[in-house]
Amino acid sequence: MECVFCRIAGGELPCRTIYEDGETKVFLDIAGDVDGHMIAIPKKHVESLLDCDEETLAHLMQTVQRVAKHCVARCGCAGVNLLNASGVCAGQSVPHLHIHIIPRKPEDGIDAWPHFEGAGQDPDQVYEQFRMERP
Amino acid sequence: MECVFCRIAGGELPCRTIYEDGETKVFLDIAGDVDGHMIAIPKKHVESLLDCDEETLAHLMQTVQRVAKHCVARCGCAGVNLLNASGVCAGQSVPHLHIHIIPRKPEDGIDAWPHFEGAGQDPDQVYEQFRMERP
Repeated sequence: MECVFCRIAGGELPCRTIYEDGETKVFLDIAGDVDGHMIAIPKKHVESLLDCDEETLAHLMQTVQRVAKHCVARCGCAGVNLLNASGVCAGQSVPHLHIHIIPRKPEDGIDAWPHFEGAGQDPDQVYEQFRMERP
Repeated sequence: MECVFCRIAGGELPCRTIYEDGETKVFLDIAGDVDGHMIAIPKKHVESLLDCDEETLAHLMQTVQRVAKHCVARCGCAGVNLLNASGVCAGQSVPHLHIHIIPRKPEDGIDAWPHFEGAGQDPDQVYEQFRMERP
């Protein structure tokens, strides 16, 4: 089993587990970049949002919500940020679907919004490029 | 109806709609900060991830996934970033649950990861603060 998050899910690699059930696990990130940074994963190996089945995605989001509510109810937080990268070009570093949870407290000084350089394309062109047919 | 996203969901305010079904809508953000920046919302008013019912959350994520797959299959993208703020202290500006979708292309020069200042707490203390009892 090569995937590092599969190995964490299976207990083969140690982690600080915040929450775990049969299908999902949430553990502290070891990056040391921001206090309380957690990673939520399905135990089943799916590479990203793009190849995840509906049930696994729904369960993962229930877990993310459960942990977010816990942060607010029990840990002195008043909110959370969620971050996800799907695809190498989006900055996904581990090819196993994961959602970052950043617990937030009032006046914590964290800015969890990326720095974007400004849009370059005309919004109407972007609209034509991306809009979908109605189902 | 005061909520701006409820007004967009109901068609009372105009937007560039990327995708829409009975329960959800995805439209272009007007911030002009990054090309293709979209916002996915449930049509039903829920304030954030913290008060969202399971069915609404599952449906919203299906829609987010559907749009992400579309970006990759049809629009020349190779991934997406997802961003969410739940709670005012997390930077949530509109009190109606929304997930930002940032379509990504290889070498697009976008850095969708926030700048974090570094963790200040001991990881073991953080672990004690946040870990949940097993369900």
